[in-house]
Amino acid sequence: MTFESNIRPIQWSGDHVKLIDQTVIPYEYKTVDIKTWKEMAEAIRDMIVRGAPAIGVSGAFGVALGAREFLDSKNREEFLQRLELMAQYLKSTRPTAVNLMWAVDKQVNLAKSVDGSISEIARQLEENALKMLEDDIEINKRIGEHGAEIIPQGATVLTHCNAGALATAGYGTALGVIRSAYAGDNSIKVFADETRPRQQGARLTAWELVNDGIPTTLITDGMCGYFMKRGMIDVVVVGGDRIALNGDTANKIGTYTVALAANAHHIPFYVAAPYSSIDTSIETGENIPIEERSHEEVTHINGKSVCPEGINIINPAFDVTPAEYITGIITETGIYIPSELKQAVLSSV
Amino acid sequence: MTFESNIRPIQWSGDHVKLIDQTVIPYEYKTVDIKTWKEMAEAIRDMIVRGAPAIGVSGAFGVALGAREFLDSKNREEFLQRLELMAQYLKSTRPTAVNLMWAVDKQVNLAKSVDGSISEIARQLEENALKMLEDDIEINKRIGEHGAEIIPQGATVLTHCNAGALATAGYGTALGVIRSAYAGDNSIKVFADETRPRQQGARLTAWELVNDGIPTTLITDGMCGYFMKRGMIDVVVVGGDRIALNGDTANKIGTYTVALAANAHHIPFYVAAPYSSIDTSIETGENIPIEERSHEEVTHINGKSVCPEGINIINPAFDVTPAEYITGIITETGIYIPSELKQAVLSSV
Repeated sequence: MTFESNIRPIQWSGDHVKLIDQTVIPYEYKTVDIKTWKEMAEAIRDMIVRGAPAIGVSGAFGVALGAREFLDSKNREEFLQRLELMAQYLKSTRPTAVNLMWAVDKQVNLAKSVDGSISEIARQLEENALKMLEDDIEINKRIGEHGAEIIPQGATVLTHCNAGALATAGYGTALGVIRSAYAGDNSIKVFADETRPRQQGARLTAWELVNDGIPTTLITDGMCGYFMKRGMIDVVVVGGDRIALNGDTANKIGTYTVALAANAHHIPFYVAAPYSSIDTSIETGENIPIEERSHEEVTHINGKSVCPEGINIINPAFDVTPAEYITGIITETGIYIPSELKQAVLSSV
Repeated sequence: MTFESNIRPIQWSGDHVKLIDQTVIPYEYKTVDIKTWKEMAEAIRDMIVRGAPAIGVSGAFGVALGAREFLDSKNREEFLQRLELMAQYLKSTRPTAVNLMWAVDKQVNLAKSVDGSISEIARQLEENALKMLEDDIEINKRIGEHGAEIIPQGATVLTHCNAGALATAGYGTALGVIRSAYAGDNSIKVFADETRPRQQGARLTAWELVNDGIPTTLITDGMCGYFMKRGMIDVVVVGGDRIALNGDTANKIGTYTVALAANAHHIPFYVAAPYSSIDTSIETGENIPIEERSHEEVTHINGKSVCPEGINIINPAFDVTPAEYITGIITETGIYIPSELKQAVLSSV
């Protein structure tokens, strides 16, 4: 069953993109108008929009916006060159989630393949970005339906970070699974990890689920072991920013620690993600680049310091959970144990 | 070797106690004058002073302050009755750390055993509180010396919460081990967990170690698995709020999750604590009461909300790490594997 959810973090106005500003939720709800590809690159880098599928779709719109800006190119060759340079830059804004590369590359390949004027290319890029946006919502609903099957009746589901409507074009991957499960069984409950440093769990997941009326308890990141030991968590479902062919999964920092705790307590641990999060070019997670972000994310909360000056900081934004800790990967075509993933994906290409 | 450290969170002025206000470090450094036993009870409950050994010594001073207030009792019997009632209240302010019960009970037993006037009892309670304060510093230095032996040369030590000078009468238990190890080998480094919800790692441990010039990296609680997997953490040392005879250890929430991650990576995990943290009345950790604290500790940081209204909260202040995850318990008389602890402690009584 599908749950009604109308959160749409990315909207196309006809000539610009409106993004929900995810840096200010839940304190404030506002949208930001993105009129140029550079504004989109900054919005992705500054995490006004975040979440692997959402930055994929945003990247696609970034290319579409750029194409409109490059209509003054003197010929198709120059237009495509400018498009490719922009694509490189867009892809560099967040290095870990592969959806951004996937979506931007799809747009560039489309541009190259269109047999028409540059304004026709621009038109098709806009149309394709819109299609990717709609497709992503549909894909999430299918992920939700498949995933709902692995949520036991009355279960308490732990999730980390935000793999919700806000992290996608809508509905969500991990939260899509929770929404679909809740639509069929309103006795399920959610535990949401705060997810320091940026607190996407406390800010975004909590906001989505409170708005949806799904019973949710916010816990700090260190608490997961305590609640697992007490038998209060039945299953873990998280998103995925980049999945290797063997199933190793990069996701928000802290995911791996949760996976270790789940494993120690024999609690199933699922990744919910679309095919666009799977990097078919890598066999294992060892080669996934891990983005390092600003030290201020650790040292400051809501603009105020939480530690003394002079302390060292390392701030990896993601970690990699090895396939051996992953019970299953929930995709739009079904649930795969990690060792089945490669064949399922490669045979679908 | 002993490291020079002059942080003294509890000081006796001659007629009142001066506590370093640990709720405002590192933003501000100030002391609070505690003149009555009730003020001491509130200071312990509100965590102006915190850390198992520190609240033990503070409780002892609380009894000494109360004794002065009760000098107007009409006889010894009334005096001792008032003292016992106060002791019950003092012990209830923080239910998990056993040092508070240990220290307050020691004072009450002393009071009952003194063969003299009530003013003589009051004098001896003050003297004994001072002795417990001095003893605790000495005990920590011995813990530090024993513990330094298990820190490999050039190691990176992960610690959780604050088991430092601030958590004791001075020097620290886990940080005592780090200080003593650093005195003999200044190539060691520290990783400090932030320790949400109250951020004692970010605020207090970071402050102590920055002041001491010991190289320290602050990480968020979810990051421990990531750094362990990368081989960047060699050993974990934490404090202990209550240790059962089998070695099960209650410590700040999040400790157990760190222990699970350490175990998965075959990283040694040590608890550093004085005998006064060992509860000789319980065989295992199952019966340790876990303090539940205010929801605001999770929902607010520096007075500002970090989540939407309407979210559920559970805020256990401690968790219990089973003995099987503990490599050794570092005490003032040496290091014991958990299965040796019972005999060592009972034979010392």
